[in-house]
Amino acid sequence: MSQEADEIDVEGEGVSAIYTVDGAVREDVLANIHAAIEAGDAEPIIELTRDLHESETADLLEALRDDERQAFVRLSGADFDFTVLTEVDEAIRVDIVDGMEAEQVAEGVRDLDSDDAVFILEDLGNEAREEILAQIPFQERIRLRRSLDYPEETAGRRMQTEFIAVPPFWTVGQAIDYIRETDDLPDRFSEIFTIEPTFKLAGMLPLDKLIKAKRDIRVEDIHDTNAHPIPALMDQEEAAQIFEQYDLLSAPVLDENDRLVGVLTIDDVVDVIQAEADEDIRLLAGVGDEELSDSVRDIARSRVGWLLVNLATAIFASLIIGLFDATIEQMVALAVLMPIVASMGGNAGTQTMTVAVRALATKDLDINNARRIIRKEMLVGLFNGLVFAVIIGLVAAVWFGLPSLGLVIGIAMIINMLFAAGAGILIPMALDKWGADPAIASGVFVTTVTDVIGFFAFLGLAAWWYGI
Amino acid sequence: MSQEADEIDVEGEGVSAIYTVDGAVREDVLANIHAAIEAGDAEPIIELTRDLHESETADLLEALRDDERQAFVRLSGADFDFTVLTEVDEAIRVDIVDGMEAEQVAEGVRDLDSDDAVFILEDLGNEAREEILAQIPFQERIRLRRSLDYPEETAGRRMQTEFIAVPPFWTVGQAIDYIRETDDLPDRFSEIFTIEPTFKLAGMLPLDKLIKAKRDIRVEDIHDTNAHPIPALMDQEEAAQIFEQYDLLSAPVLDENDRLVGVLTIDDVVDVIQAEADEDIRLLAGVGDEELSDSVRDIARSRVGWLLVNLATAIFASLIIGLFDATIEQMVALAVLMPIVASMGGNAGTQTMTVAVRALATKDLDINNARRIIRKEMLVGLFNGLVFAVIIGLVAAVWFGLPSLGLVIGIAMIINMLFAAGAGILIPMALDKWGADPAIASGVFVTTVTDVIGFFAFLGLAAWWYGI
Repeated sequence: MSQEADEIDVEGEGVSAIYTVDGAVREDVLANIHAAIEAGDAEPIIELTRDLHESETADLLEALRDDERQAFVRLSGADFDFTVLTEVDEAIRVDIVDGMEAEQVAEGVRDLDSDDAVFILEDLGNEAREEILAQIPFQERIRLRRSLDYPEETAGRRMQTEFIAVPPFWTVGQAIDYIRETDDLPDRFSEIFTIEPTFKLAGMLPLDKLIKAKRDIRVEDIHDTNAHPIPALMDQEEAAQIFEQYDLLSAPVLDENDRLVGVLTIDDVVDVIQAEADEDIRLLAGVGDEELSDSVRDIARSRVGWLLVNLATAIFASLIIGLFDATIEQMVALAVLMPIVASMGGNAGTQTMTVAVRALATKDLDINNARRIIRKEMLVGLFNGLVFAVIIGLVAAVWFGLPSLGLVIGIAMIINMLFAAGAGILIPMALDKWGADPAIASGVFVTTVTDVIGFFAFLGLAAWWYGI
Repeated sequence: MSQEADEIDVEGEGVSAIYTVDGAVREDVLANIHAAIEAGDAEPIIELTRDLHESETADLLEALRDDERQAFVRLSGADFDFTVLTEVDEAIRVDIVDGMEAEQVAEGVRDLDSDDAVFILEDLGNEAREEILAQIPFQERIRLRRSLDYPEETAGRRMQTEFIAVPPFWTVGQAIDYIRETDDLPDRFSEIFTIEPTFKLAGMLPLDKLIKAKRDIRVEDIHDTNAHPIPALMDQEEAAQIFEQYDLLSAPVLDENDRLVGVLTIDDVVDVIQAEADEDIRLLAGVGDEELSDSVRDIARSRVGWLLVNLATAIFASLIIGLFDATIEQMVALAVLMPIVASMGGNAGTQTMTVAVRALATKDLDINNARRIIRKEMLVGLFNGLVFAVIIGLVAAVWFGLPSLGLVIGIAMIINMLFAAGAGILIPMALDKWGADPAIASGVFVTTVTDVIGFFAFLGLAAWWYGI
């Protein structure tokens, strides 16, 4: 490829040539795109993205300013690869699709595997989606609608409806010839399926087994009849756990009548695993499913809920402090020290809770080991309570020159660390038992417990000890 | 399979027959194993595990009591599948291997793919590992040692050294015949590689492309020369990001001289993704890499570090309160209300920090959008600061019948929410820039900022306003 004047120079020509060593998009590449957009010059953009992977073009798109993205896509014209849209933030995807004619979107998604097409269509408004679907030929429209009819976050919504299926009685040679001669294959596949005339799944044959077998062997003699089929209505997180447990590369998806309707592939499952881990992290911190590209208003709104709950519990904790205002007035050292007890309990409880939430998510914590784990956590709480009771007791005694204050704060610390351990393990387990996601509200409950117990134990003990 | 008297009955005979609907191991299955172990009867155990997937046997093993696991493995005898060990907690794995003769372990790991063998050997003490390696035939020992010589958590340590490589000038037919006739193939593979006589990687050919091609086509005419090779010394997290970005099923691993030394597969990468997400969650909560099966002492010790740091920062925050003890003595309402300001700031800061840490981990936050994201977070902080200033201001004014107190706490809330947003975004970015994991210490720093600013702003404003 010769270097032309209007070409955006990406040295090395390797696929990762648009990135700096830190993994950010190179500023000079972006500057060239800015210039091309400014000048309305399509050539450099088409030239640059031609050799890029869809995820690289997606990174470019995300690095552009909000007002440049539609121009970038418009300039790319018919060369724009719609798979790029599956790799960008939802807000950006919706914004770009909204800026296009329904006909153009229909044209673009037709080239995609069904799972990618569904991924793009599912975020759109009902009306926009229907308008686009109306422009797609009947056969393909039926397929897409089948996926879209399954609820969000199910295997049916995530599956690819393109797959290779042959009758079980075919020979290996027939199957291979069929694959060689058929044009309408999935982009990538790592297995073929065997189905009965009723479309019922019979088995699955990975390509490595197919290729190793002699041509005259029957497929049904070597196919795997225990292919870990996934019901289309299964939650995607559950499906991902099956992939992880059995190290699957793909799995057949079956409808209510055990008919093969699609295939779930590991690359989609990797996205699900990543998304679910992300969700746990966000839920634990009280952040909704906001994305970096969301507006200030959307982000602020998504975080206000959890902060409101936190405000309520903080006020509740303050009411506890208010019970002891006379005590604090007499001995202001209590006000100085009380946040330490609450804070240590909150942190210890959060540690236990985090371990519990993750263990529940990975199904490592269940009925068989629950008692053992609870006992263990309580012992850890007791042990760390003793350690920090001694430390903070000495600090308080020396700081305020009052040994009895050290004793009071030490005992309060042990009590709060024990409650922290108990709340940290029991609250997520209870939420899980009642069918709630243990990550979502554990944090509020746990820190409410440790704040309330922390303040109450410390101030209450002090009030009783000093008789004020 | 007829039902015999001493057989452990798993109804349905499906692979998941050992689980209850909740995903826990069935209690009756466990009870039968307990009984078999008690009686020293190997038959039921061998019978039960024969048809189980390795991950299912692993779940059984984890559900047993600590003192039963070695007996379970001993009774399984030569039928014990060593891949089971790759699916259990590290503490359990080490415990079981320690209870075995070196010879038996050597025999067991020889049957495994090299990545699984390395996974079992890497956790052992140096001496035990050498003793086992000495019992493994030269050829295989060299391979295992090559992986073990690469540092932990690198692609070289995680790779499988079994792969299929052919010269680029072979035809598709030759390649397929070679695969059909060779016995020593990897258990599963989804591609073959082409290499030069010097072992330098030439390209990669996925099985679906191989199978679709005519037999007389040369492999070099269809192989993919841009196979995203992974340097053996690359960190496994970075390798996992490449898999995710380019939707790979496997990737060639190259040594320093670009020679093909192994292949990294998606199933190992899924484990890495899961482990890294887990690590982020744990680091954010100040939990080390403890496992559920660790002892109380190990768990307590792993958590003490972060709690110590938290104690130090809590004492620091108390010192700030101590500056205003005279003020609090005059007006005890300040002691009642001050935790609210600190707590709200801590939560808002944690929200921002969590989003920043995840965006840095997924490389969504970089130099190109940093300024935009910082501005956005500050605006969110300002917005939520205003919202909660009004709410808490009204609450405080009514509660204590003192409008000026509402004004003071409202202003303190806005200040602290702004600092929370700034600390939440800037601290992880700074840690990342200095090469530290942004998840590890962000939490301490952020809550220290919000505690200190929260107490100082509120008490300081009050002291100034009321002149006390």
